[in-house]
Amino acid sequence: MTEIPKNHPRYESLMAREQIIAGVEKGMTSRQGLIAQGRGEAFDYLIGEKTIDSADYAEAVAVCLLLLAESPVISVNGNAAALSPADLVMLSQLTGAKLEVNLFHRTEERIQKIIDELKENGADVVLGENAEPLLPLDHERAKVERVGIYDADVIFVPLEDGDRCKVLADMKKLVIAVDLNPLSRTAQTAHVSIIDNLKRALPNMIDMIPDFKNMEEEDLWEIVQAYDNNVVLMDAIETMKENLTAKQNEVLGINPDENDNSGKKEKKMLQEANERRFGKMQRDPEIAKKVMMRGGDLMME
Amino acid sequence: MTEIPKNHPRYESLMAREQIIAGVEKGMTSRQGLIAQGRGEAFDYLIGEKTIDSADYAEAVAVCLLLLAESPVISVNGNAAALSPADLVMLSQLTGAKLEVNLFHRTEERIQKIIDELKENGADVVLGENAEPLLPLDHERAKVERVGIYDADVIFVPLEDGDRCKVLADMKKLVIAVDLNPLSRTAQTAHVSIIDNLKRALPNMIDMIPDFKNMEEEDLWEIVQAYDNNVVLMDAIETMKENLTAKQNEVLGINPDENDNSGKKEKKMLQEANERRFGKMQRDPEIAKKVMMRGGDLMME
Repeated sequence: MTEIPKNHPRYESLMAREQIIAGVEKGMTSRQGLIAQGRGEAFDYLIGEKTIDSADYAEAVAVCLLLLAESPVISVNGNAAALSPADLVMLSQLTGAKLEVNLFHRTEERIQKIIDELKENGADVVLGENAEPLLPLDHERAKVERVGIYDADVIFVPLEDGDRCKVLADMKKLVIAVDLNPLSRTAQTAHVSIIDNLKRALPNMIDMIPDFKNMEEEDLWEIVQAYDNNVVLMDAIETMKENLTAKQNEVLGINPDENDNSGKKEKKMLQEANERRFGKMQRDPEIAKKVMMRGGDLMME
Repeated sequence: MTEIPKNHPRYESLMAREQIIAGVEKGMTSRQGLIAQGRGEAFDYLIGEKTIDSADYAEAVAVCLLLLAESPVISVNGNAAALSPADLVMLSQLTGAKLEVNLFHRTEERIQKIIDELKENGADVVLGENAEPLLPLDHERAKVERVGIYDADVIFVPLEDGDRCKVLADMKKLVIAVDLNPLSRTAQTAHVSIIDNLKRALPNMIDMIPDFKNMEEEDLWEIVQAYDNNVVLMDAIETMKENLTAKQNEVLGINPDENDNSGKKEKKMLQEANERRFGKMQRDPEIAKKVMMRGGDLMME
């Protein structure tokens, strides 16, 4: 792995990137997994690279569900195994959920390498080798183990594909997804959508298990029933919008703490900039026409 | 390459992904390039996977600058060469800009493979082999050709690294960047930031060259001088916020065309959802406490 100084402002993000690259080198992670990691990085940046309150809440509900489930299963893919092998094993041990390796770009070799990695990190049993095409999807993507994902009542799917998430939900399983993109089909389809980085979500969930383990089942159900996934999705999207607005203010040199009408100031500055440009363009109608033909209508609004 | 049906709703995005993977297989693109492609995909999704008006405008200004420049250079990295080799060569030929291969993760082998790819796509001369460490950066990243990027007055840098973009701007060169992330240091540092997919930006720029080639230099300068990069950055961020709001409305089942007070309705629905949850939690203060400790304060607001 490339050496990254611990005081680098984006240390966590760069470390995760190196872990995924190491996962490819170990033969666990696919090239598509690298692209997926990049997508995650972008959404994590927009969410502020931290666990927002609504994600923390979704993580609490996810723990309740895993503790309440009769046959919970944690689905592991190449990215999850590269990023958090030890935490996946610990979550499995503390909640009694089985581990099953399940890949979008399935090869038996990658399945085996991920099983080995999880066992090296303390797992006793890891399902995935004896998968049969039991899901209503094309052959390779349909493969799950009968005693694992197929029979599960609650499935924890970090970094899952949208199609498969929908199939699992259609089979009346309760699906907990971890996905930094609140707009993805996975996030929209899952019953509990954790809009957080897997590397933050897992330690946080592990940390809260002792509290919930001491609670009555009835109380855990009450928490689960009170949960509304749409509120969590809304909050994540809202957070991204707020962070984008903060960036706009930064670019325009606006300090929202200084005055309450920052929105107005921002609008005024944009308007003034447009007027300046509009004025210049007006001098030569020929130029104005040329530029208008090429997206210049932005300036004319 | 994997076969992708042309009618797939995200055909362009999936094709680009396959091109980048092919670039890795050809030895042109680095693994970090795959992650960068993923980040781009996420921001392209947020911008709506189309060339927005302000990006079209920035592309027009970029063409003017390339035509006005005395020594324009197009900097090519592994991702750009994998995505748009023919268009890069055509932009170079139509504007008189030199092509120079410039890599963040430089190896002589990758430099050579990218030069070969550009030559296969019609380029006569491609700089990059004889690079010397002329930029104030660590050794490998500092390397540029004296007759190329070092002496250039205008540089077109698709998918550039933030550090290097800043160094080029500090050297008083005019920098045109293509970057789908309007928040990146590259986008914030460049003089003209094209917030668009390279695969859409290049054909669009090539398409507008004949129009601008017939204009007087003075008129081209007027267009360039009237340009305000902050307006373009603002517009891209604003578009992302609008698309996020549209998604929120979709999740909540709100049709903004139906009524004018969609914002109010959205707020009301969120408030009602919160009240429902709040009511349930209140029944058992012990549960309320537990959940509050775990991010449940979202529900108490």
